[in-house]
Amino acid sequence: MEQTVNTLSNSGDVLFMMLGAVMVFAMHGGFAFLEVGTVRRKNQVNALVKILVDFSISTLIYFCVGYTLAYGINFFIPAKDLMAANQGYELVHFFFLLTFAAAIPAIISGGIAERAKFWTQAVAAGIFVGITYPLFEGMVWGRISLLGQNDSWLAQHTGGIPFHDYAGSVVVHSMGGWIALVAVVLLGPRRGRWDHQGRSTPIPISNVPFLALGSWMLCVGWFGFNVMSAASIQGISGLVAINSLMAMVGGILVALVLSRNDPGFIHNGALAGLVAICAGSDKVHPLGAFIIGGIAAAIFVRGFTWEQEKLKIDDVLGVWPLHGICGSWGGIACGIFGQEVLGGMGGVGFVAQVVGSFAAIGMAIVFSFTVYKFLDLMFGIRLSEEEEMIGSDLVIHKLESLPEDRTTSFR
Amino acid sequence: MEQTVNTLSNSGDVLFMMLGAVMVFAMHGGFAFLEVGTVRRKNQVNALVKILVDFSISTLIYFCVGYTLAYGINFFIPAKDLMAANQGYELVHFFFLLTFAAAIPAIISGGIAERAKFWTQAVAAGIFVGITYPLFEGMVWGRISLLGQNDSWLAQHTGGIPFHDYAGSVVVHSMGGWIALVAVVLLGPRRGRWDHQGRSTPIPISNVPFLALGSWMLCVGWFGFNVMSAASIQGISGLVAINSLMAMVGGILVALVLSRNDPGFIHNGALAGLVAICAGSDKVHPLGAFIIGGIAAAIFVRGFTWEQEKLKIDDVLGVWPLHGICGSWGGIACGIFGQEVLGGMGGVGFVAQVVGSFAAIGMAIVFSFTVYKFLDLMFGIRLSEEEEMIGSDLVIHKLESLPEDRTTSFR
Amino acid sequence: MEQTVNTLSNSGDVLFMMLGAVMVFAMHGGFAFLEVGTVRRKNQVNALVKILVDFSISTLIYFCVGYTLAYGINFFIPAKDLMAANQGYELVHFFFLLTFAAAIPAIISGGIAERAKFWTQAVAAGIFVGITYPLFEGMVWGRISLLGQNDSWLAQHTGGIPFHDYAGSVVVHSMGGWIALVAVVLLGPRRGRWDHQGRSTPIPISNVPFLALGSWMLCVGWFGFNVMSAASIQGISGLVAINSLMAMVGGILVALVLSRNDPGFIHNGALAGLVAICAGSDKVHPLGAFIIGGIAAAIFVRGFTWEQEKLKIDDVLGVWPLHGICGSWGGIACGIFGQEVLGGMGGVGFVAQVVGSFAAIGMAIVFSFTVYKFLDLMFGIRLSEEEEMIGSDLVIHKLESLPEDRTTSFR
Repeated sequence: MEQTVNTLSNSGDVLFMMLGAVMVFAMHGGFAFLEVGTVRRKNQVNALVKILVDFSISTLIYFCVGYTLAYGINFFIPAKDLMAANQGYELVHFFFLLTFAAAIPAIISGGIAERAKFWTQAVAAGIFVGITYPLFEGMVWGRISLLGQNDSWLAQHTGGIPFHDYAGSVVVHSMGGWIALVAVVLLGPRRGRWDHQGRSTPIPISNVPFLALGSWMLCVGWFGFNVMSAASIQGISGLVAINSLMAMVGGILVALVLSRNDPGFIHNGALAGLVAICAGSDKVHPLGAFIIGGIAAAIFVRGFTWEQEKLKIDDVLGVWPLHGICGSWGGIACGIFGQEVLGGMGGVGFVAQVVGSFAAIGMAIVFSFTVYKFLDLMFGIRLSEEEEMIGSDLVIHKLESLPEDRTTSFR
Repeated sequence: MEQTVNTLSNSGDVLFMMLGAVMVFAMHGGFAFLEVGTVRRKNQVNALVKILVDFSISTLIYFCVGYTLAYGINFFIPAKDLMAANQGYELVHFFFLLTFAAAIPAIISGGIAERAKFWTQAVAAGIFVGITYPLFEGMVWGRISLLGQNDSWLAQHTGGIPFHDYAGSVVVHSMGGWIALVAVVLLGPRRGRWDHQGRSTPIPISNVPFLALGSWMLCVGWFGFNVMSAASIQGISGLVAINSLMAMVGGILVALVLSRNDPGFIHNGALAGLVAICAGSDKVHPLGAFIIGGIAAAIFVRGFTWEQEKLKIDDVLGVWPLHGICGSWGGIACGIFGQEVLGGMGGVGFVAQVVGSFAAIGMAIVFSFTVYKFLDLMFGIRLSEEEEMIGSDLVIHKLESLPEDRTTSFR
Repeated sequence: MEQTVNTLSNSGDVLFMMLGAVMVFAMHGGFAFLEVGTVRRKNQVNALVKILVDFSISTLIYFCVGYTLAYGINFFIPAKDLMAANQGYELVHFFFLLTFAAAIPAIISGGIAERAKFWTQAVAAGIFVGITYPLFEGMVWGRISLLGQNDSWLAQHTGGIPFHDYAGSVVVHSMGGWIALVAVVLLGPRRGRWDHQGRSTPIPISNVPFLALGSWMLCVGWFGFNVMSAASIQGISGLVAINSLMAMVGGILVALVLSRNDPGFIHNGALAGLVAICAGSDKVHPLGAFIIGGIAAAIFVRGFTWEQEKLKIDDVLGVWPLHGICGSWGGIACGIFGQEVLGGMGGVGFVAQVVGSFAAIGMAIVFSFTVYKFLDLMFGIRLSEEEEMIGSDLVIHKLESLPEDRTTSFR
């Protein structure tokens, strides 16, 4: 019977990770539709293809390089050996973490939409998923002795408490969002976003139902993102699930009020709350999660307007405020609301959270600037003026979003 | 090893509830798209936002009030105490049952679409989810000694057999559908639904693919709705899964034949079958489920036409026949097809099922009338004539469904 | 405690199968949207209804006849007896395998789209799911002593190694694809696909986002298709999950390169990879899976063009190259890349794989020709010229895809 229990425990872990991986994989469909709904119709096809292709490139690179960098695992051994331990648990663990890694290019994609070159961005995706992301991931969750559990120096300076990021507010979202900021700035705004006198002329989004569909796909999958970060079925925590729910709800309601019922902000407010709760979802009280999510939505609504109207940064989906700033906020918030005095589980340190959150920002900016500057000099990162006017769909993919409409007089 | 088995059992329960909760949460996306596809394009954005916001309000109210009312649980204790028992099982149990409770406003939403005020309906949602629903829920599944297991009076009069509603045909669907009926009647029909001579002029739906997408999302999530109503992995029943399948299929095929291949009726026929099977899904034979679902679809197809053409009630998505009448039918059908003589598992009483089903109708009508009459007197529940003509999207959300189409001459 | 362990093991199996069944059920929504996006707008509604109705007919027939044929199980016993063993495991096992069986008409549907009669095809669906499919399924996975584990004759001629098809490259996909080929040829091309001089005039697809949505729904559900083919939680294999991932990614990347960034080929390339990996997903190394998927996409891209432009077969969604040829390739590839010398798990035979793969082709062609010839003589299988021009939506369902657009001058 002991063997049955062991098998059940192992197979439970494999199922747990596999379900998480599939749920987060489905989130990438959500990234795609969120972008489809937000960009103009002439760039919808490109949004769909980018997400799928960047995910595929990420898979290959992370399998060959990234995962090894972060965790020291080598998959170039016979299948029998891959399956030898725990029914292939390491393989589904890879799958799960790949879906996190591939979120980096998916996040960037939304910022640089409608004017970036396809292949240059594919190369950038490969570099971030193969090197940048695994380096930071390896510090927080893996074998690199910095920031995380293995960092004795940081621990010494923060009372023995390492940087904590349960499900990636900082490791995934802020990393992606801050990388995207640099890319968006280097790329420059879309033609027509500001007129000749520098006046803001917002470009209308194409399709609210597709935007909403993307948001729904992301919200649903996010419960896998957070809950399955336990990495083992026996580590599952009901608190993580409900905190994700409460932060999402807080995000929706604050975005509703602050944006005066704007559908774009409301559907993204849900995501802002979810971005911010990842880090502390295992630590804070559900009411703390509600507040964290609510503040995240406020950051997003105000930050997006500030970014666009004051800083004049044309971040199409607002991925910097959404993933970048809200991710950093999530890392820091974990150090506040995770405290026992605020009803949290305790065992988190404010200083460590601030250090970790800012470390990610610094690393993202340095890597992103280096990579995009290099790619810009080598190949150029932006479509030509004419290509941008025609749209990525016809230029890159030779097909529009609704091909039949072009060829028939009445649809 | 005993500890491992205990942990496995507990974590299995948490996973089970969490998966169920996420599946039913995804159904709310289905409610949204079913409405998006059915209303006119000028009200699509409103459909999306309503579902998301009412879900969020429901979460907050049910967390603070409703769940406590029904089950006597208080969540205002430190996170450590919330997690103390069974890895936070109570939290995911809340999450799962919240997704049921939030179905009440989601059901109503489809009936009152295209002319109801946003904030008044949000308040109504809060009242139903905070008070009305938990009261009835508490009787059937919770701590209130009426109708359910704890009702010795009813049991005495029905041979010791309490009212049985496994997954909410009555508790959720009929409650929501009958509340909606009153709201729809008080609200009155959309402008133009009947012409000046009172002749019926049906308002065309906007988008069949979105309607179908909504139906698919609902159907897929419904297996979580029913199967995870076991509330514990060890209570899982293959019969519940297959009965849901068979009732759905029965609903599709009967709707196909009766409606002569109408896509709206067919996609809603699947839902009619699923509404009706919830109550007895653990009790009836798969062939009984097929018949229950088939009859439900007949009720929906005929009931919708009767409601619209004879009663002249402008229930946009037909939520009263779909959730109301089919829900009541499901409660009663459990008392018929659950009998051993019809191949069922037995242990159900026809009288108890009739009593429970009618109790829900009475309670729904009384509460709904009181709440909407009060709200109508205080704030008004209906948009102005001009607002209705412009459409909820521009009036409430300042944005249309396809914003780009408004601003470019060629899309 | 032993009882708890037994219950946990049994309920884990039921949950495992149920999750798999629901995931593959959701794939049918994917089949629907893949077709919606690919056909012209005047046939979108028909695509949605066909999938739902054929799934329902399949459920009924497979419950009453097919499953019994393949596995010798009879469901016409009281519910109590159905639930007696392992919490109703057999019922969810049926549900899971039904979702496979129903893939046969779903595959055919994409090939014959835009000109086939609705009811004739419904009858054909019933015959294939009731008889043809279960016969072959019963050989490979069930009680019929041919090809599979029980085939001593084949085993004798292949060194004791039976035909291996883990998740249905051959049993499901090639069977469906080759049946579809015959149907498509007998039906003839859509009007206007080739002009009067026989020059190819490709008919534009309607909607790339819906095509992509369909592909995403299929990809996500496919992990249930493959992983849950273990049929028991204790048999779960991480290798199956990652091989599915790698084959999908290989398919995407090869389709990207060969098609020069065509969105239709890229989204179908993912599916081609997944079709081909089913058979050997438990046997090959992840890099083998990547190659299998890449070759499958090459077969699809080149095969589709060859089928359309050289063979002049109007297979609307390209289901013959996608499911038929890639399915056969998957069966054979398992016999190559499953070998230990190529890093695989071993225990597969090249000859057995070739025999099994060709047996399916032969059986598909014979059955398909017989059934469609008979139906054509009896009822006709094709819409009239006028009906085809008007479109299936108005002719069969009396409703178009976007009904509101017809009746308002401005949407």
